[in-house]
Amino acid sequence: MPAPMTTLAALAVRFGCELRGDPDIEVDSVATLQGATGCSVAFLANLKYRRHLAATAAGAVVLQARFAAECPVPALISANPYATFARIAAELHPQPASAPGVHAAAHVDPGAHVATSASIAAGAVIEAGASIGERAVIGPSCVVMRDARVGDDSRLVAGVTLCRGVHVGARALLHPGVVIGADGFGFAPEPEGWVKVPQIGGVCIGDDVEIGANTTIDRGAIENTVIEDGVKLDNQIQIGHNVRIGAHTVVAGCSGISGSTVIGRRCIIGGMVGIAGHLTLGDDVHVTGLTLVSRSLSGPGVYSSGWPAEETRRWRRNVAQLRRLSKQHDDEGDDA
Amino acid sequence: MPAPMTTLAALAVRFGCELRGDPDIEVDSVATLQGATGCSVAFLANLKYRRHLAATAAGAVVLQARFAAECPVPALISANPYATFARIAAELHPQPASAPGVHAAAHVDPGAHVATSASIAAGAVIEAGASIGERAVIGPSCVVMRDARVGDDSRLVAGVTLCRGVHVGARALLHPGVVIGADGFGFAPEPEGWVKVPQIGGVCIGDDVEIGANTTIDRGAIENTVIEDGVKLDNQIQIGHNVRIGAHTVVAGCSGISGSTVIGRRCIIGGMVGIAGHLTLGDDVHVTGLTLVSRSLSGPGVYSSGWPAEETRRWRRNVAQLRRLSKQHDDEGDDA
Amino acid sequence: MPAPMTTLAALAVRFGCELRGDPDIEVDSVATLQGATGCSVAFLANLKYRRHLAATAAGAVVLQARFAAECPVPALISANPYATFARIAAELHPQPASAPGVHAAAHVDPGAHVATSASIAAGAVIEAGASIGERAVIGPSCVVMRDARVGDDSRLVAGVTLCRGVHVGARALLHPGVVIGADGFGFAPEPEGWVKVPQIGGVCIGDDVEIGANTTIDRGAIENTVIEDGVKLDNQIQIGHNVRIGAHTVVAGCSGISGSTVIGRRCIIGGMVGIAGHLTLGDDVHVTGLTLVSRSLSGPGVYSSGWPAEETRRWRRNVAQLRRLSKQHDDEGDDA
Repeated sequence: MPAPMTTLAALAVRFGCELRGDPDIEVDSVATLQGATGCSVAFLANLKYRRHLAATAAGAVVLQARFAAECPVPALISANPYATFARIAAELHPQPASAPGVHAAAHVDPGAHVATSASIAAGAVIEAGASIGERAVIGPSCVVMRDARVGDDSRLVAGVTLCRGVHVGARALLHPGVVIGADGFGFAPEPEGWVKVPQIGGVCIGDDVEIGANTTIDRGAIENTVIEDGVKLDNQIQIGHNVRIGAHTVVAGCSGISGSTVIGRRCIIGGMVGIAGHLTLGDDVHVTGLTLVSRSLSGPGVYSSGWPAEETRRWRRNVAQLRRLSKQHDDEGDDA
Repeated sequence: MPAPMTTLAALAVRFGCELRGDPDIEVDSVATLQGATGCSVAFLANLKYRRHLAATAAGAVVLQARFAAECPVPALISANPYATFARIAAELHPQPASAPGVHAAAHVDPGAHVATSASIAAGAVIEAGASIGERAVIGPSCVVMRDARVGDDSRLVAGVTLCRGVHVGARALLHPGVVIGADGFGFAPEPEGWVKVPQIGGVCIGDDVEIGANTTIDRGAIENTVIEDGVKLDNQIQIGHNVRIGAHTVVAGCSGISGSTVIGRRCIIGGMVGIAGHLTLGDDVHVTGLTLVSRSLSGPGVYSSGWPAEETRRWRRNVAQLRRLSKQHDDEGDDA
Repeated sequence: MPAPMTTLAALAVRFGCELRGDPDIEVDSVATLQGATGCSVAFLANLKYRRHLAATAAGAVVLQARFAAECPVPALISANPYATFARIAAELHPQPASAPGVHAAAHVDPGAHVATSASIAAGAVIEAGASIGERAVIGPSCVVMRDARVGDDSRLVAGVTLCRGVHVGARALLHPGVVIGADGFGFAPEPEGWVKVPQIGGVCIGDDVEIGANTTIDRGAIENTVIEDGVKLDNQIQIGHNVRIGAHTVVAGCSGISGSTVIGRRCIIGGMVGIAGHLTLGDDVHVTGLTLVSRSLSGPGVYSSGWPAEETRRWRRNVAQLRRLSKQHDDEGDDA
C-alpha cells in the first residue's frame, strides 16, 4: 500500500523529538541503517549496530542525543529511540484496513452477535452466542465457538480458534494458529487407566494482549486461566490450566508454563523456558532461555539454568567429569 | 447450560461414596474449596490445599476418610477423591451435545461415509473415502482427508487435521490444531542436497485417546506410527514417525519423541522432555520435565536431567566451575 | 492407489544399481526388511537393522556391495542405499494427484491469480493479489493472504497459513498447521508498557523447501526472513524475524531460532535446540539435541550442551555436587 510522504518536521512534532537537520526532507518508510535510502527513517537502539551509523544514507535516524554527533544525516533525537521508531513505523506503514461486514463465504450463526463495524472474513465460523466487538477483525478460517467474546478493535489474523466461552479483551492481536480454551490436561489415575477431569473453567484475556502463532492457552479446570492486560506472548508457547500471567509480562517463544502457576507483573521469560506447576513467580522476575523453573522465585531477580553449547568433545568431558566427582563424593561417604 | 440439581444422597449412591452429613442437600456444580458455595461440591486430593478445608463453604467435599474429621461440611468419602470428583463433575457439567447431521456450510465429499448420528460443523471438510463413526463430532474447520477414519463417539473439537488414511479409534478427544499423519522427517543425504524419503506408512490411534492442542503425530515412513488405547497427550507435543506409545501412557506439554522410539505402557513423561530416536523405554518409566533421553531406559524407574534454576549470578559460577574442573582433570592427564 | 508392477531389471536400469539376482522378479511396493514380502523392495542403511537381513523375504534389498554376500534374496547394489531406496519408494508409491481447478467450496478472491493447472481444495481461501503457480496444490482450509505467492509445483497440504506478501518458491512442501509470516516478536519498553514495533518485512522461502507440521516462520521486522533453497524443517520449529537459514540446512523438531540469527549452509540442527538471537553459525555446523546456543559458532564443528538422563536419585546427586563445589570454590576465594 502506498505510504504517505511526511516531512521530518511533522514527525518531530508528532512524536516529540528534537530535530537536528533539514525539516523539509520528506520520508515515506522505515529501514535499517544499512538498507535505508533518502526516503526512509532508520534508528539506532542496539549498540551492536552503531558501526553502521557513519555510512547510513537514511533520510533521518532516530537516536539518543549522545550519538547525534556521529550521525551523517538528519537526526530525530529521542530518549527512547526504539519506541519512537516503533511509532513512526506504525504511522508510515499502516495496516491495510479490513472492510466492515460479513464476507459471503463466512459462516455466522444467527444466534451470534457481530458489531456492524466488525469484519468477518471468508471461511470464518462464528457460533451461536458468540460476540464480536466494534471494529474487530476475524480473519479467514478463524473459529469463534459458542459464547466466546472478542473485544473491540481486536484482530484474529487467520486460523485462530477460540473455544467456547473464552473472553478476549480489547485491542488484542492473535496470530495464526492460536488456540485459546482447549481443555487443560487433567486426569485422575485409577487402576484401569485415567479418568478425565472435566475442564469447566474459562479463559480471560485482558486488553492490549498479543499472542504469537500456534501458541496455546488452556481453559481452567474449575476457575479461569487469566492473562492480564498488556501481556505479550511469542509463538508456540503453552500455557496450562489456571495459570495467571501478570500485566505487561512478556514470554519468548516455545516456553511452557504448567498448570496453576502464577507469574507476576512485568516479568521477562526467555525462550524455551519450562515452568513447573503450582508455583509463584514474583513481579519483575527475569528468566533466561532454556531454564527449568521447578520452585517459586521471588522478584525482582534474574534466574538461569541453561548450559551454553561447547564443542561436543569438550562437552562430553564435562558430563563425565561431573559424574566422576559425584561418584567419588558418594564413595567417600560425604553424603552420610 | 443449566445443570441439574442433585442430592448428596444420589451422588453417594451413584459414585459409591460413604456420605457423612445431610443426604438431602442439593448441589448443581463443582468448585474449589475456596470458591465453593453451598450448591457446589469441592474436593481434597492435593495436600497443598488442605489448609483451605476448614473454611470451605461447599455443599460437600469429596475426600479420604482420614480427613473427614477436619471437614466442616458434609463429606463424600472416597478412596480416590480426585477420580470420584472427576466423575461428579462430568455428571453436573455435561458437555453441550452437538446436533447430528451435516451443517450446510460443511463440505462432505459424496465419496465419504458419515454416520447419520455424527455431527459435522460449518467449515469442516471431509474428503472422499473418509469415514466418520456413530455420534462422532467433527468441529468447525476440521479437515479429514481421503480414506481417514474417525471412530464412534470421537470428537475433533475444531481445526483438527487428519491426513490421508489415518485411523482414529473410538471415544477420542482431539483438541484444536492437532495434526495427525503429516509426513515424517526423512531425507537421504546426497552431495547435491537431500532426497525426500516418501512417507508411506500411516498412523493408528487406539480407543480413549486424548490429544492436546497443536500436538503433531507424524505418519510412519513404511509401517505405522501407533498410539495405543488410553494414551493422553498434552499440548504441543511432537511424535515422530514410527513411534509407538504404550497403553495408558501420559505425556506432558511440549515434549518431543523422535522417530522409531518405542515407549512402554503406563509411562509418565514430563513436560519439554526430548527423547532421541530408535530407543526403547520400558513400562512404567517416569521421566521428569526438561530431560534429554538419549539412551534406552528400563522400567520401572524415574529419570531426570533437568537443572533447576538458580540466580543467574550463581548459575554462571556453576558453569565456570565445571569447566575449570574438566580442564584441570584433562591437564592432569587422568583421561589417559 | 494401485501401484504398478515393475521388474528388478527396470529398477536397476532406472536407478543405476547393479542387480545381483533374477531380473524378471516383479515388485510393487517398498517395505522394511522384516515386513517385506516377495513383492516388495527393502533396504539396508542403518547398521542397527543388519541383523534382519539374513531372514528377509523381500523381493530385493537395496544395499552396499559389501553386504551383498549376506543377502538371501536379489540385491540392488548402490553406494547410497538410502537415497536409492527413497527414489524407488517415490516411483512405486506416487502421491495421489490433485485434480486441477478450483473446488466449488474454495474461496478465491477475483483479484487473485491462480494458474489453470493449480488445484485449490474445499475450504481454502485465496485473498486478493495472491498468486498460485502452475501445478501448485492448495489443500483444504489453507489460507493464502493478500499478495502472497506460491511457486510452481508447491503443495500446501491442509490448514497452512501464508500471511500477506509472503513468498514461497517452487516445489515446496508445507505440512498442516504451518504459519509463515506472522509478526515477529518486537516490542519497545516504555514505563507504561510495551509499544509494538510494526513488522513490515516479509518472508522469502527458496525452492525445494519442506516445512513440518505446525512450524512457524515470522516475517521480518524491516527486511525479510529468508529460508534458502533445499532447507528441510521438521515439525513445531519456531523461526524468529530476520533469521536467515542457509541452503540445504536441516532442523529437527521443536527447535527455536531467535531473531536476526544467521545459520550457514548444510548445517544439521538437532531437536529442541534453542539458538539465541543476533548470532552467526557457520557452514556445516552440527548442533546436537537439547542444546542452548548462546554465542556464535564457527563451522565446521559439532556442538552440544544437553545432559543425558540418569536415574533421578543419581541426577540429584550431580546437581548437589556441583553446587557444593561451586560454593566451596567461592569460599576459598579462588574467584578473586
